[in-house]
Amino acid sequence: VSKARLEAFCDGVFAIAATLLILHVSADGRGAALAGALTRAWPQYAAYLLSFVMIGIWWVNHHAYLSVIDRVDRTFLFANLALLICIAFLPFPTQLVAEHLRDPGRRAAAFLYCLTLTAAAVSMAFLWRHASRRRRLIAAATTDAQVRRHTRDVALGPPANAATALLSLWSAEVALGFVALFALFYVVGGGALTRRTTA
Amino acid sequence: VSKARLEAFCDGVFAIAATLLILHVSADGRGAALAGALTRAWPQYAAYLLSFVMIGIWWVNHHAYLSVIDRVDRTFLFANLALLICIAFLPFPTQLVAEHLRDPGRRAAAFLYCLTLTAAAVSMAFLWRHASRRRRLIAAATTDAQVRRHTRDVALGPPANAATALLSLWSAEVALGFVALFALFYVVGGGALTRRTTA
Amino acid sequence: VSKARLEAFCDGVFAIAATLLILHVSADGRGAALAGALTRAWPQYAAYLLSFVMIGIWWVNHHAYLSVIDRVDRTFLFANLALLICIAFLPFPTQLVAEHLRDPGRRAAAFLYCLTLTAAAVSMAFLWRHASRRRRLIAAATTDAQVRRHTRDVALGPPANAATALLSLWSAEVALGFVALFALFYVVGGGALTRRTTA
Amino acid sequence: VSKARLEAFCDGVFAIAATLLILHVSADGRGAALAGALTRAWPQYAAYLLSFVMIGIWWVNHHAYLSVIDRVDRTFLFANLALLICIAFLPFPTQLVAEHLRDPGRRAAAFLYCLTLTAAAVSMAFLWRHASRRRRLIAAATTDAQVRRHTRDVALGPPANAATALLSLWSAEVALGFVALFALFYVVGGGALTRRTTA
Repeated sequence: VSKARLEAFCDGVFAIAATLLILHVSADGRGAALAGALTRAWPQYAAYLLSFVMIGIWWVNHHAYLSVIDRVDRTFLFANLALLICIAFLPFPTQLVAEHLRDPGRRAAAFLYCLTLTAAAVSMAFLWRHASRRRRLIAAATTDAQVRRHTRDVALGPPANAATALLSLWSAEVALGFVALFALFYVVGGGALTRRTTA
Repeated sequence: VSKARLEAFCDGVFAIAATLLILHVSADGRGAALAGALTRAWPQYAAYLLSFVMIGIWWVNHHAYLSVIDRVDRTFLFANLALLICIAFLPFPTQLVAEHLRDPGRRAAAFLYCLTLTAAAVSMAFLWRHASRRRRLIAAATTDAQVRRHTRDVALGPPANAATALLSLWSAEVALGFVALFALFYVVGGGALTRRTTA
Repeated sequence: VSKARLEAFCDGVFAIAATLLILHVSADGRGAALAGALTRAWPQYAAYLLSFVMIGIWWVNHHAYLSVIDRVDRTFLFANLALLICIAFLPFPTQLVAEHLRDPGRRAAAFLYCLTLTAAAVSMAFLWRHASRRRRLIAAATTDAQVRRHTRDVALGPPANAATALLSLWSAEVALGFVALFALFYVVGGGALTRRTTA
Repeated sequence: VSKARLEAFCDGVFAIAATLLILHVSADGRGAALAGALTRAWPQYAAYLLSFVMIGIWWVNHHAYLSVIDRVDRTFLFANLALLICIAFLPFPTQLVAEHLRDPGRRAAAFLYCLTLTAAAVSMAFLWRHASRRRRLIAAATTDAQVRRHTRDVALGPPANAATALLSLWSAEVALGFVALFALFYVVGGGALTRRTTA
């Protein structure tokens, strides 16, 4: 499997996972009650928005890491598969968060959501560690400084996501708020911050 | 992320969003009643058709704008993500319109439909403004006249779509009829008109 | 929109439409009754198989026609969109046929199925007529003999599919049997026949 | 249809089939009961994981076989379609296994699961036999030793998968355990073993 085909396959999974999110958005109002039902369904829109942005961020990051390597090996392929398994899983906890944000199930839903992101971050960290160790898969044009920056960035993912997972056991709103804030900073954030917060 | 990969990712989201529309088409007649149920389900076919054509038009337009730029930056990526979030959201209001076209919920459904298109048009206008400002991302081969024409076209999108959204609060049928007429003109329309009406 | 991007977009819609078919396959048996329910669900497998093969045949044909042209224009784009709308619609009548093959709704279901294929064939014929008229979009390397053969082939699609649609009003089984036979001949058929039967 | 387009189409089906798996994962707990429901839903996560990995392995293998050929013919196209029909079918038995792993329907579900994989392996073996016979579609750069190794590997698929299908009639857990073990060995396994177990 060449790097180009792997990228195309990953792009497919990212795009499908993001687009499938809409299948879980629903509103039950009948007739004139629809307007009210649509308004009350805001957690569904918020969850759709958050997960679409998260998948978009992961897609951008995934490309950033792949852009500095120029070959893939078997271990890389299957570590990457683990990452895709996590990304493609996200629509499920997204739906749970949307449905349970206003009932006592919210903490279990938020925990599974953050746990999925943590698993994705661990896969990504393993993927990078494998690719970068002794520059195993790194392209010749990539500087050691770039490799070091990626190594430092990717190491932040697992503890940061695990922290939100733990936080969600105490308060789903606070944990998801942190995830949303992170996404917001990532998207609008300036150079220094965003260069460091990858995954 | 290169422009080529971004295009491939966007193509994926457009194609998936359009193809998912069919999952919401349904007819409930049992046995011999199926023929009647299929006939009565015409709002579902109409909504499927309208949204598929709208997504097709957006896809064509998106390519027209991307064809005159030759690089992307971080802001472009995330403005583009906002556009994709709107396009991928369309199956939800499409389903609402199909289900509620003959009950009092029709205005709420049509409003959400037009609001989604308005948000897409705003994202597209922002995207283009960012790309074209001082020719930031514009390809060298693109003439200033082309840039000006795109700038003029893209500016029509937000007010036109916002107007149908407002209209839908008064009459869902009239608002959706305008959207359908616009799509029809766009598809069959001659040069001058179609060159100007870009989303 | 270049021909390459159009092909990629079409490939996406064909692949997604085919893969979505499985979402409608279901079996309701609980516990030990599952084995019986899975056996009785054979119309679902048959409908899945037939539609997947039909979409595959259309995909192959679509490529055959696109391989002799080397540019696309606006009319081609939207005629092609009409074709995609028909292909992406197929999962709906497929589900109806699977569910109603053993109740009186079977004729309505089969009629909609054949009507969808007829609409696809009409779109394809229009698409080709537009592309081939005075070799408007035909690649220079394409011989006139190739163009004539495609023109002859594509003309068979609408009447053949319309005939099965009419037939389905009398007998769903016979009409769908003809569609299946056609697909079988197409897939295993020898040169002369298959070269002529292009949907 | 060129080999490149065929690969892109296949990649699409593999990616979509894998990503659709999540649509069947669900948990029914309301409110505070959600945490318990999510824990009890482990067969759903396990089935999702197993099928995603299986599709990933098939994707890798499919590329390995396609990498040594350099053209496709009509028979290859339709044998490949048969393979895609099996891969795209997998979400259905996956859902059955997940739902019935703890009731008496488990053997029927596991049998259909293994039967689907067997059909995929038979398609792959036929595909390869057709491509490799007298090096019909084999690239000039491919050595005879490579061809022989692929021929030996692909022949293992049908009997191995048929054996698990038979086994599932006696014990679903043991049969699925073998499938999972095979996947595990494939992913983490060393050279000699993994080079032999392809499909």
